[in-house]
Amino acid sequence: MPKDEFEWIRQHTPQRHFQKSLIEGIGDDAAVFASETEYNQLLCVDTMIENVHFKKKTMSPEDIGYKALAVNLSDIAAMGGIPVFYMVSIAVPGTWSDDELKGIYNGITDLGAFYQIDMIGGDTVSSPHELMISVTVYGKVEHNASLLRGNAKPGDYVFLTSATGRSAAGLDILLNKGRLSDFNEKEKVLINHHQRPKPKIIAGRTALKLQARIALNDISDGLASETFEIAEASGTSIELFKNQIPVAEELLLFSENKYWQWILYGGEDFEIVGTVSESDWLKLQEAMKREGIVLYKIGRVKEGHPSVTLIDGEKKESLQKQGYNHFR
Amino acid sequence: MPKDEFEWIRQHTPQRHFQKSLIEGIGDDAAVFASETEYNQLLCVDTMIENVHFKKKTMSPEDIGYKALAVNLSDIAAMGGIPVFYMVSIAVPGTWSDDELKGIYNGITDLGAFYQIDMIGGDTVSSPHELMISVTVYGKVEHNASLLRGNAKPGDYVFLTSATGRSAAGLDILLNKGRLSDFNEKEKVLINHHQRPKPKIIAGRTALKLQARIALNDISDGLASETFEIAEASGTSIELFKNQIPVAEELLLFSENKYWQWILYGGEDFEIVGTVSESDWLKLQEAMKREGIVLYKIGRVKEGHPSVTLIDGEKKESLQKQGYNHFR
Repeated sequence: MPKDEFEWIRQHTPQRHFQKSLIEGIGDDAAVFASETEYNQLLCVDTMIENVHFKKKTMSPEDIGYKALAVNLSDIAAMGGIPVFYMVSIAVPGTWSDDELKGIYNGITDLGAFYQIDMIGGDTVSSPHELMISVTVYGKVEHNASLLRGNAKPGDYVFLTSATGRSAAGLDILLNKGRLSDFNEKEKVLINHHQRPKPKIIAGRTALKLQARIALNDISDGLASETFEIAEASGTSIELFKNQIPVAEELLLFSENKYWQWILYGGEDFEIVGTVSESDWLKLQEAMKREGIVLYKIGRVKEGHPSVTLIDGEKKESLQKQGYNHFR
Repeated sequence: MPKDEFEWIRQHTPQRHFQKSLIEGIGDDAAVFASETEYNQLLCVDTMIENVHFKKKTMSPEDIGYKALAVNLSDIAAMGGIPVFYMVSIAVPGTWSDDELKGIYNGITDLGAFYQIDMIGGDTVSSPHELMISVTVYGKVEHNASLLRGNAKPGDYVFLTSATGRSAAGLDILLNKGRLSDFNEKEKVLINHHQRPKPKIIAGRTALKLQARIALNDISDGLASETFEIAEASGTSIELFKNQIPVAEELLLFSENKYWQWILYGGEDFEIVGTVSESDWLKLQEAMKREGIVLYKIGRVKEGHPSVTLIDGEKKESLQKQGYNHFR
């Protein structure tokens, strides 16, 4: 824990800023920025706790910082939004060195710089046991367009931006071997999906610009759970077709039973699941393709009580809305 | 920790909302709200950790919730702003019951309802040891007016909204006796200043509306430290006159040495310290008086290296920029 928090934060605050709307960043009681009338505003927050969401064994300080911001950018992506500013609250136990803390901030500010968004506030307090990091992201989105979970209607297709389950597989490897071991190429891919999952900002923006009725949700808690949230918010029933859900080749390192668990219930891939009407499906697929994003059509929205059913030939399995627990 | 976090949050989310600009509150990936072009935007965040900022012995669950929001409202007050929305992230250890968690949320939402501001997001995660609560507040403030710490100039008066040190005295009592003991009337006043300090939103608004060059800072870390921040941000030296600093009568229960420590270095009174030019002083004092706020003139801004000096007759004491530590 740095002795002079104020001085420390000043030292770790980027000198220049990206966003023209910023009036006062870090250094006063609150940040001040100008309204942009052509947009609505977005706000979200997510908290990561040591030994609940990460361990020193599984994530470097830089990874922790990266992911604490990325999980929020993923939420902005699922709203079709543009991230603008972020704030970082860290509670630091004495077992973490100043260098490790600096690593966390570097992980955050590097990702922030990539998206040209500015850190405009936060605080650093001490914590008796676990490190805790809570990031708030402020973003913006055009009026008269929204990608809410409640937008799904019977007849819609369910789509997915890419294969899920790789983050959970990467975590499994990290828990077994620790992050400082040697890994083969496929393991490295999986680990990278856990430590550095990419928020799908461009996918969200592309869906939004279509001006169609699209429901979107980012996959932080697992495909089943996030699809369930769309079903609940829309008052619909959703069928997923097992043979249409993509299976990443790196997952074939593991037993089928294991990887299907991860594909359906593993969290933090930050892929996007959504629904779109049959008539807009090709337009959406084409628009995504132009951005280099392959869309998978994995299911169908039906009338019925909120539920998610996995269809596998003749077999039907009711999927649970179970949250992702890292170390269960 | 509730089993279905989503369901739990839904149950504890107020059904109606106050702010017309809200488009989507809790329930999607991020909250959505409209821009208000006649204002600039404010954002701030503050985190409270069990056994660092509070103990079960010193604060009820409702007090904890209240204070986690209030500390942020105090920041908005120091910017002269109007609070609008807030988000709540809580990390809950298994040692806290669902009823206690509900108490925390009640403390938050009751204060939110008082200010007619809406909870629009947040998350609830589990924590291995301490309860942590991080609140983000979004507010707004008129253009072309600002009460930044850097606004002070040599010759300005230093003012204070009310006596400081009562929160620290209340904490001292609570640490000695625990919050469930019997207290006399004066002790109750002090304890109330610790558990339920009032953000000075009206004082901030009144200062802002004057359209004068005013520096403002809320006292969360102690009078000395917060005055120091104004000196640093303004590049000035500040003198405080000991015989002009108000001493709350309840503090006379304690030794002079003790209460002066609390007045100067005790945090979380949420009073406001600020500076105003000699020519605007009377106008400010009158405007505050109309709102029922007594302003104390406690010092003077001078040229010089950033510092705060306590003047006591012939004696001069250099005050330290030392943060407030609850359980040191």
